Amino acid sequence: MTGEFRIISELFAPLAGDAPGAFCLTDDAALLGDRVVTKDMLIEGVHFLKGDPLDLVAKKLVRVNVSDLVAKGAKPAGYFLACAWPSATKIGAIEDFARGLKEDQALYRIALYGGDTTRHVSAAGPLTLSATFFGAAPRGGMVRREGAALGDDLFVSGSIGDAGLGLAALQKLEKFPAADRDFLVGRYRLPEPRVTLGGALPGLASAAIDVSDGLLADAGRLAALAKLRVEIEASAIPLSPAASRWLGKREDRRAALARIASSGDDYEILFAAPPSRRRAVEMAAKLSKTPVARIGAFVKGHGRAVLLDADGSEIEAQGGFDHFAA
Amino acid sequence: MTGEFRIISELFAPLAGDAPGAFCLTDDAALLGDRVVTKDMLIEGVHFLKGDPLDLVAKKLVRVNVSDLVAKGAKPAGYFLACAWPSATKIGAIEDFARGLKEDQALYRIALYGGDTTRHVSAAGPLTLSATFFGAAPRGGMVRREGAALGDDLFVSGSIGDAGLGLAALQKLEKFPAADRDFLVGRYRLPEPRVTLGGALPGLASAAIDVSDGLLADAGRLAALAKLRVEIEASAIPLSPAASRWLGKREDRRAALARIASSGDDYEILFAAPPSRRRAVEMAAKLSKTPVARIGAFVKGHGRAVLLDADGSEIEAQGGFDHFAA
Repeated sequence: MTGEFRIISELFAPLAGDAPGAFCLTDDAALLGDRVVTKDMLIEGVHFLKGDPLDLVAKKLVRVNVSDLVAKGAKPAGYFLACAWPSATKIGAIEDFARGLKEDQALYRIALYGGDTTRHVSAAGPLTLSATFFGAAPRGGMVRREGAALGDDLFVSGSIGDAGLGLAALQKLEKFPAADRDFLVGRYRLPEPRVTLGGALPGLASAAIDVSDGLLADAGRLAALAKLRVEIEASAIPLSPAASRWLGKREDRRAALARIASSGDDYEILFAAPPSRRRAVEMAAKLSKTPVARIGAFVKGHGRAVLLDADGSEIEAQGGFDHFAA
Repeated sequence: MTGEFRIISELFAPLAGDAPGAFCLTDDAALLGDRVVTKDMLIEGVHFLKGDPLDLVAKKLVRVNVSDLVAKGAKPAGYFLACAWPSATKIGAIEDFARGLKEDQALYRIALYGGDTTRHVSAAGPLTLSATFFGAAPRGGMVRREGAALGDDLFVSGSIGDAGLGLAALQKLEKFPAADRDFLVGRYRLPEPRVTLGGALPGLASAAIDVSDGLLADAGRLAALAKLRVEIEASAIPLSPAASRWLGKREDRRAALARIASSGDDYEILFAAPPSRRRAVEMAAKLSKTPVARIGAFVKGHGRAVLLDADGSEIEAQGGFDHFAA
């Protein structure tokens, strides 16, 4: 068990006790009455880069939280915001940030309900943003991370790996043709939460999570809570044309697939559903105009996710980004 | 209008629009159905000092938020927590922090409902903590910052200025006898929200706020929302024995009073009530075992707070700590 999981499970989960709706902190959201509540922090240098346009940073903050809510089948309603600005921040920068919030509030039909605005002592900051979002829970309660059953399929929306490649482009670790670079950087900077698919999840998914820490890490969370093994077919992972082109040029294809399955920030929805609902999943994908791919299944085994090559051999990969890995 | 107020009123308040319960961000809490919600951030170097014991920092985080809730007449129930740790933070430090949370959860009967744990890129951090607290709203809705009327008295609980002097002691800006120093530092590090008095506020107070940015700054907020002037009698401000001794030794008594009225972090409750309720306020103070002093009144004038000496002359003072003052 790596750092962040251990800190949460050993130090923080006991603080939830048996509070109803807190789910022992096994979920990324809590259920308070008929509201789903989630909290996510973005830190300069960790979740976005120094110099990133602040209207886009604001939108990323909104979207990572909206993504959490829609993966629970909830309808976003509003949020609270805390900002710690570097001491030298100019008013124009905060205006850019507020403009980004305003545009995304209109897009997702949400309002700001309160918060806190402070300056760091240091000019180096780093800019640290924390938002608590809430939304209307679906009838029958939110879709949980827990609940995948033996034999369930594993589905994922959209395409995987784009945001990680976009980050690599920004960090000058990878080079791409200009159009591919723009697309991938856009996926990193400005995720698009799968709002319409989210509305279809209740009654369809037995468990769901949004892909923020990486496909394998987040699938591993569903597997751990289900006390099952989830097998992901590497060849079934949906890729964008840009990511496909990048993959096509790799000498070590298995290492490249492992990297795609381990990179974070895609904010797609990953969910489990029984095979009897395959047609219903197809219909939901069509109605919500969201690509959905079946990428694996839950089988007997220890609670983890494994990546399998076409020949059935396991591709070794990191379990995803962990802020507290040693 | 200084920086932080301007940022909130001009850039963030429009983002609240007319969302019911958001009160155009004029309050430090929002009303969501029958829950009061508040969000406060603590930053190392701003709200606590590097090297402060982390169990006490955890308790301060809990208490500044509990203080917000009780000043609204709400009963604390639970919270969400986001932590950004310096990269070099050891597990033992996080254990200390979690122990502080656990002890205060027992004290205030609250549970942790979720959150986010991340590391900064830099070993310098700074440790940044954001909590969103919620509690049960009193029948008839929460006590607002807005609502003080012409002729209302201004009351404050406990004693004022202690936390600011405690901070000055820690920063080696002031020297105190050992016992006074311990008391004042304790008031800075470990505020005690006036939970029992808070329960009596609904039906008693026409407006209320907790004193976090300084007596004058926070009284000024009540005055601004009431579109009245609030006059505070400097000699009526309740002082602890330690603060009284410090004041007694100042050569410039007026400057020292101005400093007490401008220093933050006391987390006392400041509230307005009509003179017809003076007996009821006395009873509430007695029943809640909380000292309450009448320190001023709301009169005609522009929305600000002024500090008056015994001869009626105004003592010039800063309006309190503003993170964004130029």
